[in-house]
Amino acid sequence: MSKKRIVILGGGFAGVYTALYLEKFIKPSDEIEVALVNRENYFVYQPMLPEVVGGSLDILDTVSSIRKLAPKTRLFIREIDHVDLKQKQVILSPQFSHKPLTLTYDHLVIALGNVTDFRGMVGIHEHALPFKNLADALVIRNRIIEALEGASASDDPGWRRQLLTFVVGGGGFSGTEVVAEINDLVRKLAKQYPRINKDEISVHLIHSKDRLMERELSESLSLYAQKILQKRGVNIHFGVRLQAATPNEAILDNGEKIQTKTIVSTVPSSPNPIVESLDIPQIKGHIETDSTLLVKDSDHLWCAGDCSAIPNVATGKGYCPPTAQFAIREAKVLAKNIVAQIKGKERKEFKFKALGMMGALGHHSAVAELFGKIKFSGLLAWMFWRMVYWVKLPGASRKVKVALSWLIESMIPQEAVQLKISPSQGIAKLHFEPGEIVFHEGDIGDYLYIIVDGEVEVYQERDSQKNVVSTLGAGSYFGEMALMNQRTRSATISCTKPTNLLALRKSDFGMLISSFAPLGESIQATEKTRREELENR
Amino acid sequence: MSKKRIVILGGGFAGVYTALYLEKFIKPSDEIEVALVNRENYFVYQPMLPEVVGGSLDILDTVSSIRKLAPKTRLFIREIDHVDLKQKQVILSPQFSHKPLTLTYDHLVIALGNVTDFRGMVGIHEHALPFKNLADALVIRNRIIEALEGASASDDPGWRRQLLTFVVGGGGFSGTEVVAEINDLVRKLAKQYPRINKDEISVHLIHSKDRLMERELSESLSLYAQKILQKRGVNIHFGVRLQAATPNEAILDNGEKIQTKTIVSTVPSSPNPIVESLDIPQIKGHIETDSTLLVKDSDHLWCAGDCSAIPNVATGKGYCPPTAQFAIREAKVLAKNIVAQIKGKERKEFKFKALGMMGALGHHSAVAELFGKIKFSGLLAWMFWRMVYWVKLPGASRKVKVALSWLIESMIPQEAVQLKISPSQGIAKLHFEPGEIVFHEGDIGDYLYIIVDGEVEVYQERDSQKNVVSTLGAGSYFGEMALMNQRTRSATISCTKPTNLLALRKSDFGMLISSFAPLGESIQATEKTRREELENR
Repeated sequence: MSKKRIVILGGGFAGVYTALYLEKFIKPSDEIEVALVNRENYFVYQPMLPEVVGGSLDILDTVSSIRKLAPKTRLFIREIDHVDLKQKQVILSPQFSHKPLTLTYDHLVIALGNVTDFRGMVGIHEHALPFKNLADALVIRNRIIEALEGASASDDPGWRRQLLTFVVGGGGFSGTEVVAEINDLVRKLAKQYPRINKDEISVHLIHSKDRLMERELSESLSLYAQKILQKRGVNIHFGVRLQAATPNEAILDNGEKIQTKTIVSTVPSSPNPIVESLDIPQIKGHIETDSTLLVKDSDHLWCAGDCSAIPNVATGKGYCPPTAQFAIREAKVLAKNIVAQIKGKERKEFKFKALGMMGALGHHSAVAELFGKIKFSGLLAWMFWRMVYWVKLPGASRKVKVALSWLIESMIPQEAVQLKISPSQGIAKLHFEPGEIVFHEGDIGDYLYIIVDGEVEVYQERDSQKNVVSTLGAGSYFGEMALMNQRTRSATISCTKPTNLLALRKSDFGMLISSFAPLGESIQATEKTRREELENR
Repeated sequence: MSKKRIVILGGGFAGVYTALYLEKFIKPSDEIEVALVNRENYFVYQPMLPEVVGGSLDILDTVSSIRKLAPKTRLFIREIDHVDLKQKQVILSPQFSHKPLTLTYDHLVIALGNVTDFRGMVGIHEHALPFKNLADALVIRNRIIEALEGASASDDPGWRRQLLTFVVGGGGFSGTEVVAEINDLVRKLAKQYPRINKDEISVHLIHSKDRLMERELSESLSLYAQKILQKRGVNIHFGVRLQAATPNEAILDNGEKIQTKTIVSTVPSSPNPIVESLDIPQIKGHIETDSTLLVKDSDHLWCAGDCSAIPNVATGKGYCPPTAQFAIREAKVLAKNIVAQIKGKERKEFKFKALGMMGALGHHSAVAELFGKIKFSGLLAWMFWRMVYWVKLPGASRKVKVALSWLIESMIPQEAVQLKISPSQGIAKLHFEPGEIVFHEGDIGDYLYIIVDGEVEVYQERDSQKNVVSTLGAGSYFGEMALMNQRTRSATISCTKPTNLLALRKSDFGMLISSFAPLGESIQATEKTRREELENR
């Protein structure tokens, strides 16, 4: 009898804590192995992300190594290409090569969370910054400093004012916390720019409802949060939505336009595209489970966290909310239930009532609500906020580091230092020596290649015989076939001379040929000729 | 009488310390203002960069805000487009817009250092990582962790070995220090990967000479450094050069090939392209100055640091070496001399003898040589190394932070956490509303635009009259003219409908049209027709 394999998709709270609890509940004699797939090898402690924007935490303070948190779990740091529910396989995208990697599972845990999705919102995708992961936090911070530098270097009052205007869309938890941090940061750093007058700065929060965090907090606390933000200089627009964005302005749905170069949008979240592609019961893009976290109509698919629709047994109505508090508890029950299921024992029901809600409001203030009764705010709430999240931080060394960062921040004034990562070239240049393979027949099609100089041979292998299809030289391109037909490579490309190539990513290629007529036509014609040639062989 | 303006180009040791000393030497009554141009708003403390790769320092520990170091200097955070020596102007690239910014100067300080330049080395530019600035250090660190993750996930022994092979080209100071850090890092982190066997790891240093750091250190210390590295597992190849690179291997000039996915090259350095473009006396790409740091045959151009060729008065032969030690002292004399020159006083000669040399060798060892006599190595040298650089760190708060990082590192085991910044899309998508301007006539040409949908109007303004040249719709492109002729925009583009555009960076555009025949021809033909149309108007 071979080992049972559990594959977890996603490294957020739900995924990582499922792995963590599985390591606790599985005995070595159980013959169960666990694998986790995630894009990064770290776990981001989301509740502290706004502090990265604000700079009270160092960039790495909010991340923990998944490998260290769950040492017995086999980690795969890859993108997920797709999930084959029939074959019970997860197919991972290539890394360092063009070969996909296939994982088979007996039990699959889907914990992919949701993604920021600006589809259908004009210009938002192009010109608003999302606020979801660590990279987003850094990008926002860098943009703010860039805007301050730009304003400081200019003598044009309109231009300066536009650069010094910051707009945040969405007044839920994440939008409110991030606007508080941005506001504090801009006003604090501006003091280091003698040429910037604080009256030139404006920070806007756009919220479609009539009070902040209306789903999470009681009215009195909402109003308190609002007062704090307004006092600190945040301009809150209630009852309007961010409708569109251009490089120069944010456009609200009441027609108002705000001249700005920096828009952050925290809405809307939408399901992970992988979740959307799965043929299993879903409610508005969330996977439907029973109260034991087993996906409806299945005996080996599980789901937890933000991508799930789990009946809320504790309250008897609706579904469990998408919060870290719930995800961690769900993970524990999920881990227990998988082990029970494998051993043929009974599964446990998930039943949990939220302890309370908290939101940080930047410098030394916060709002909190416990057990639906106790409400408090201000410095006390802020200290409580820090304490709770600090206690929940995974790993002792992380705790020490975060505490030290907070200590340092309270003693040493912050510097307006950007962390500039040079932009990666959109089009990669590659060099190959004679005899080297660019890609193999059957590989995944991820790039289009253009030959700058040199020569390549296109061949197929049939009955272990090499059939050369053609030889291509400078100015030719190849690889369009797999890209256009969403198939794997239909031939192998080997270099016969020292060869320099340009490689165009699949996504960039798609954009270019669909919009750029002369290019699209030329490539389509070539693809057709070549495909027919191959088919007639 | 208006103020005299000094413009400093470059924010390395020479540039920043010149600003710093100018602030000391200039009295408010002197009527002199100082501006500094740099790509980043921070100063990187180069000697500590290898520690960022190794992870003993946090990313931001090695950087200081230039604004804080030199608060009275006006900072411009921009790329330099070009320098016009005749008009005494520095033209800066656009930021947030397409408008260049022009600075005029009375005195110009050129302190642009050098750049890593792989021109002429086949495949090195494409497949070797440079090690020069903060982003490079991060990229190298991330790549190493990615390789460990990749090897851990694979069962193919050859593939694993290739991923776990790391090659560094160049055995000067920077190459030796970085190979030491990489070696320590890989072997330390590998312990966190239970599936990686330490025998699978190999680290290579490729050096063209017969001993390490031969220009900087005496033979006995070179040999000591070599012994240390070899004992720790670094495989040193003497007397050979890194000749070429492909995605799969490093190729040495003796024909040897090393299968690897990670190549770091610290050679060669070449002059900054801006320096190369200047019509002033140069020796092998270094600007020739007299012994007072005034550029030859000039009375208002100055030069210091790695891009200069300053006669070495102290030794009486050759030029001053490109080290931080010298750059800081040069900056001081340069600042004094500019002020003297402006006031019509006599300039001072630059005369300095190096105090000694030091090199760190990773974990708890280093080599040092003082006054050409005292030599020491090992733990003592390492502690000395840290002390000297720590004392020289600018800013008290930076000192505290670095000391804390070192303290934390000695107590808390390091985690193999990458800092993944999502790759920026190679081709940007833009959205504009009706009436908005994409670019103005006279702007700098930095992008080619393709219309995905919508409509734009192309017009010129003559005698404040608007002449519409044409209207373009979906599938058309514009902006090629300024890119192909290296000129400014010959017309203004305004959107008449809500418009979505793709924007292709100038550098990417250049690569594409020069290599991709059908595209190049089509665009050239369009450009010609449109140019003739405009000229005939």
